[in-house]
Order: sequence, then structure tokens, then C-alpha cells
Amino acid sequence: MRIIDIIEKKREKQELSKQEIEYFITQYTNGNIKDYQAAALVMAIFLNGMTNQETTDLTLAMAQSGEILDLSTLKETIVDKHSTGGVGDKVSLVLLPLVSSLGVPVAKMSGRGLGFTGGTVDKLESIPGYQTTIEMNEFVKNVEEIGISMISQTLNLAPADKKLYALRDSISCVESIPLIASSIMSKKIASGAQKIVLDVTVGNGAFMKNREEARKLANTMIEIGKLAKRETVCILTNMDEPLGYAIGNALEVIEAVRFLKNDMPEDLKQVVLELGSYMMQLAGKGNDLEENKVKLLENIKNGEAYKKFIELVQKQGGDITYIENLDKLPKAKQIEPIYSPKDGYIQEMNSKEIGKLAGILGAGREQKEDVIDVSVGIVLAKKVTDKVKKNDILAYIHANDEKLVEVKKRLEKIIKISEKPVEKEKVVLEVIR
Amino acid sequence: MRIIDIIEKKREKQELSKQEIEYFITQYTNGNIKDYQAAALVMAIFLNGMTNQETTDLTLAMAQSGEILDLSTLKETIVDKHSTGGVGDKVSLVLLPLVSSLGVPVAKMSGRGLGFTGGTVDKLESIPGYQTTIEMNEFVKNVEEIGISMISQTLNLAPADKKLYALRDSISCVESIPLIASSIMSKKIASGAQKIVLDVTVGNGAFMKNREEARKLANTMIEIGKLAKRETVCILTNMDEPLGYAIGNALEVIEAVRFLKNDMPEDLKQVVLELGSYMMQLAGKGNDLEENKVKLLENIKNGEAYKKFIELVQKQGGDITYIENLDKLPKAKQIEPIYSPKDGYIQEMNSKEIGKLAGILGAGREQKEDVIDVSVGIVLAKKVTDKVKKNDILAYIHANDEKLVEVKKRLEKIIKISEKPVEKEKVVLEVIR
Repeated sequence: MRIIDIIEKKREKQELSKQEIEYFITQYTNGNIKDYQAAALVMAIFLNGMTNQETTDLTLAMAQSGEILDLSTLKETIVDKHSTGGVGDKVSLVLLPLVSSLGVPVAKMSGRGLGFTGGTVDKLESIPGYQTTIEMNEFVKNVEEIGISMISQTLNLAPADKKLYALRDSISCVESIPLIASSIMSKKIASGAQKIVLDVTVGNGAFMKNREEARKLANTMIEIGKLAKRETVCILTNMDEPLGYAIGNALEVIEAVRFLKNDMPEDLKQVVLELGSYMMQLAGKGNDLEENKVKLLENIKNGEAYKKFIELVQKQGGDITYIENLDKLPKAKQIEPIYSPKDGYIQEMNSKEIGKLAGILGAGREQKEDVIDVSVGIVLAKKVTDKVKKNDILAYIHANDEKLVEVKKRLEKIIKISEKPVEKEKVVLEVIR
Repeated sequence: MRIIDIIEKKREKQELSKQEIEYFITQYTNGNIKDYQAAALVMAIFLNGMTNQETTDLTLAMAQSGEILDLSTLKETIVDKHSTGGVGDKVSLVLLPLVSSLGVPVAKMSGRGLGFTGGTVDKLESIPGYQTTIEMNEFVKNVEEIGISMISQTLNLAPADKKLYALRDSISCVESIPLIASSIMSKKIASGAQKIVLDVTVGNGAFMKNREEARKLANTMIEIGKLAKRETVCILTNMDEPLGYAIGNALEVIEAVRFLKNDMPEDLKQVVLELGSYMMQLAGKGNDLEENKVKLLENIKNGEAYKKFIELVQKQGGDITYIENLDKLPKAKQIEPIYSPKDGYIQEMNSKEIGKLAGILGAGREQKEDVIDVSVGIVLAKKVTDKVKKNDILAYIHANDEKLVEVKKRLEKIIKISEKPVEKEKVVLEVIR
């Protein structure tokens, strides 16, 4: 087999065989296929597409390119959850202890993630003592003992995906449905998922800018799920404005803990209940979605979900006094409000732009090596459609340095206020399975 | 400017600006743009195409990426000639001394070329003493003094093209009209051509397998010529069977010298007269094409063209006794005839396959470093449409080693004989200008 023939085949819009895709992935991972040959193939895939069978073969080949976590010892159906990413996305922090409190086993490995704000792991690490890099046997043991563990991706999961993703990033080939879908699904499969619930975010703060594209991505992942025998449900959610009020690492932990104590922002609540009801169903813990939602709400109200979170933090070595007393969590030196310039209604709070500002404050990383400041970020005081009066506080900026000035100026421009009432957009857009 | 944005633009099928193309070429040549980024862009160009303006900008940027030969001191219009390549293509060896003998100045730099047989330079080097790597001032002086010089590309001509070509070869992106056209035209422009006559070969032994593709390539090169102010004429010629009878380096020199002494294979004659008549016209040495052909034939018959060739060889340091007595040229140890298995008519002599066999004998090089055996090759005894009797000699194999056995077996299969008469195909297919 020769890579040059594989490139030519895809260039001519032909379907690659499983063997050809496996050859590409194994030889690219071990360095026999060069970056420039992979780049040409990736561009050909970008422009000529891939069938669902090809995308599935690519997914499985990437999953098999490194270690694969075997969770079969747990003897329960492991349902994984993944989000295609957003701004203020603290869903995992809330949802996973919540479903765990209802008997859905959670064995979750999260990424640190590049981007405007940190990933779930960065957020958890803002709790002093919380160990995100424990041994695999301890990880599995924790799930067995308390029904949940949330850690960092310490295994060498899907290294081919890592290498291909970095390449795609440097050759303008990120936004390709088959490549995004196989990247997500390969990591889920490698981390031992048997069923998968995907939060496919849509909007300016998400990977998928519009519903049409999001639907295509969702359908592709569902098809991969079918062909790879990993039942998959996709929930399309709106990411035009940030999810909840807080954007930043410790700030999101605070919001998540409050949520678990029954202080629930409406949009976050809807997303959590929707994803949770499907996770329960897939895990065999309740077939009726509406009933599941009722149970989920119950476990917020009766404190079970919060208790599970405390249990998780404790098990991972975290200091639970920081959760019991949220004021102890790292705080920024300056907390600066911004005010409404006029009466009206919040029309737009562009997630992408707000996410960028959080990044400027130090809440995210541009390079893998960058250090995150867990204390900084932005906390909104209003959400889109809210009525405001002149001089009402719109948001607080949590900053540790002079970047505050620039961020304040830019945030004032980003929050758009309309004189007329604004129509409410749905948060959960649709479910595809 | 960022290469990633340029890749994205072409990926989205947008037209690149002159500045973007220049940025790509200069930064790729100096190594700031990596091979994998160039590979992605090249595949996007392959699949999404380029406008004539983009192709011209690419051509000029590549021409300017290295040294540019200034032939303005010659004070005459320099018409260059180029062939897109074929099997048994000894046109330059014959045509250039011929037009030079009619006052068309010839300053020709040829490639060594990878492929089944050597390039013009390899063929010239089969004449002992012939210097193909002389200094530029000597090259120009030779043209001034005797009206012709034919040498190797010693200058660092269009290095960007060299680098891009090697890349294209390793990522299945050779057969792209804008990339082929700009590659050819950039080298012609860098080597000082003011007007250009192009022999665009069509058929199994050529780059362009069919007339439609050849026409597209020709039209693209003509448009580049217009936009770059280098008048260009393209002559489409048939390359389904080898041109003339000889395939191999010294063997083609012998055929070329005999041609200049009025022993002209019909197909080679037609190509030479057609190209020659246009070269004369572009050089301002005769506007009437038919009259030009008469003059060209005259200079074959009166020995002027042969005399010019002798003068050229002498000027370049070659030993003319090898031309005056062709038997002195390097000879293969074995000359093996192959015979017709039946009565009939020659139906097919696939150039590509015959070229490959010459390559197996040692007449070409696969790698830049390979050493050519100038003595080996194949000499046909018949051409397509010729009537043959059983046991007539069809061809001679000139070999120096045991490869003879394999080549003989394969050549017998390649030459197809029909029982019915075969229709003559045209050699000069059309002229586009």
C-alpha cells in the first residue's frame, strides 16, 4: 500500500477502504507517513468528504492508535457525555454528580482544552487538593466505590487524533464534519464509552455556527455510533450567549455548586435536565424521559446531587471546606461592575466575544504550556431578554491585572441593548438519535 | 499575511491576490512556510482550480524566486521552445540548429529530466567533449558568435518551482493544469524567453492523455503568455507512438544527425517543420508559415542545418568526429531484433510502455542521482500503419545487460499487429495561439 495512491483516490472522490484508512493512521502515527502527505490527504477529505463508513473506519483506527480504557470490569453500561464546547459550559460539573446520585455510573476523563476558558479539568483543579491525574486502577476503583470519578486524560488516548488535530489546525482544515466527528468519537471510544450523549453546541460561541452544520455533525456522529456499536444521542443546544452567568474556572465551580444546591440558572437547568434524562435512559436507569427529569430535579432539591459532588471531591483528595464555604476559593483582586448605558432589553451577549475577553483576563490558554489563572473571569448579571434600567449592573469583571481596562471597554460594546422587548430563544434546540 | 488564511481562501474557492501568491512563493522558498502547509494549499489548488490571473501570478512569482537570465544584450527577439515531453522526442536536437541556420537566435537551456529516457542535455552529452555546463557569459557569447548555444540549466532557475514540483510528486498532485502550466512557463520566463513555442504532446506517452486536457493546458499557457507579455504558441502533437524510430540517448543523436542530413522520419519532419515555421514567425524571420516551411526544408537539403549543428558541437567543446562518423558514438554490446509473429499492419506501439522499456535498459533515470547509459535503447524498424510480413524485423533492442530478456518479452507484447489496414493518425493535431 502506498500513501500516494490513497491520496490520489480521495483526490478523485473515491471511497477509501478500511485497510487504506488503517494504513494511513498507523503509518502517520509512527511517522512513516510525513506531515505533508497527511496534509494533502486531509485537504482532499475536507473538500471531497467521507462516507459514514469511511468516517467510522477513521474513528476506530484513531481510537486504536493508542491505549484503550477497558471499563468492562465495572459490569455496568458506561454512558459518556461530551460537549463540542462553549463559553460558560459547566454542564459536566453539575450533570455528572447529579446522574451519579441516581445510580448512573460516571467514569469521566476530560480534556484541559485550549480555548477561551479552561476545560472541566481546569475547573476541578481550582478546588485545592483535587487530584486530576490518578492511576487508572484508582480511577476505576473510585467509580466502583462511589459511582463517580472525574479526572484528566492521563492515558495516551487516540494519539493519531492528537497529531491530526494539530496538523488540521495549522492547515485551515479544522471545520470538516467527518474530521470533527471522528476526532470526538475516537476519544470517546478510546476512553471506554459504551453509549454516548453528546451536547452539540450551536452558535457564535460554538464550533458549529449554525443549526444546519450542527445537524450534519450530529447525524454523522450518530451514524458512527451505529456502525461502531456505541449508541449515541445528540442534543443540539444554543451557544449564542454564555451558558449560565459565570465564565471562568473557579467562578464556574461556584455557579455549579450553587446549582447543585438548587440555585439553577434557567438555561443551564434545561440543558442539564435534557442531557441527564438521556444519560439515565441509555444507562438503563429509567426509560421515561419526563420521569427522569422529575427524578433529576428531586435529587437537586433533596441534596443528593450536592452530596455526591462532595463525595467526589473528597475521594479525589480535594478540600471540601472550599465547597462548603465557596468564599474560600481563589478570588481575583479586582471585581469591577459594568453598567447599562440606557433602559431597554438585553438583545445580545455574544459568547465568542465574551469568551475571548475571559481569555484575555487569563482564564484560558492559547498554548498548551500557558498557565491558567483560575480566579479571573466574567460574571453576567443579566441574560438575553432581561429588562434593564439605565445604570443597572450588567456584569462583573474579575481581574488580576491591568487587562481589566481593555476588557471593560470591550465588554461594554459587546453587550447590546435594544429598546424593544427581545424574543426568547430556545436553549435545547432539538434531539437527534 | 498568514499562510493559514491563504489556505482557507483557496479551500473556499476564492481567488488569491498577487500579493498572497507572492507571499506563499517567497516564504515557501525560504522555508518559513512548511511543506505540510504548502501541501494543503496545493491540494486545494488541485481541487478548486485557479483563474488565469492567479496562474499567471504564480508563474511570475516562481520565475522571480531565483535567478533570471537577461538575454537583452543579444538585441534580438529570443524565442524559446519547449516540449511537455514524450518518448523518442529528439525535436530540440534537430529543430534548434535548423532554425538557427535561418537566423533565429537560439539560447536554449534544457533539463536533464527524470523519466524513461534522458533529456536533451543527456542526449548532447553522449557526444564526447560536449560541455553542457558552461558559464552564462560564455553561453551568451556563443549565441552572439554563432547564433546558437544549447546547455544545461546551470542557473538557479525558479527554485520555487523545483521545490513545489518535488512536493506535488509526493502528494499525488502532479496532474493539475494550473500547476503544470505555471511550472513550464515560470522556467521559460526565468530563462529569458521573450516569445515561446510550446510542443504540447498528447497521448499515452505524454503528460496529457487526451486532446481535451491538452487543449486546456495549451489555453492556460497562452493566457499566461498574454498576461505576462510573452507571446505563446502551442502546437498539439500526437504522442501515442514514439516520435521517429529511435528511443535512447546516443541512438536519438544518431537519428537527429541523419535527419539533418536529409534522412527524415515523416512524423518527426512534420513536428519540426510546424514548430520551426512558428519559431521563425515569432522571431520576425518570416511571416508566412508555408514559406517558412519551404525555407526550413531547403536548409536541410543544402546542408546548412547540419553545418550549424557541427558548429554548435564544436563551439561547446564536442568532438565532431563522432558526428561525422556516427559509428564512433557509444554502442550497446547486444543488438537484438524482434520479429513480427504474423502478417498484418502495425496497429499500436504504445509510447509509454516502450519508454518504460528503454528506462529498464538504462536509458533514463528514476532518481536524480541515477547514471544514464547513453548507448542503450530501442530502435523501431516499423511505425504504426506500416504493413508487415511474418518474421519481418519490428524493432531492435540495444542492451548492455541481462535486462534484454525481460525487455524483449515485453516489447513483443507491446507491439500490436492488426489483420486489417490501420488508419493514419495525424501527428500535428492543432495549433492554438
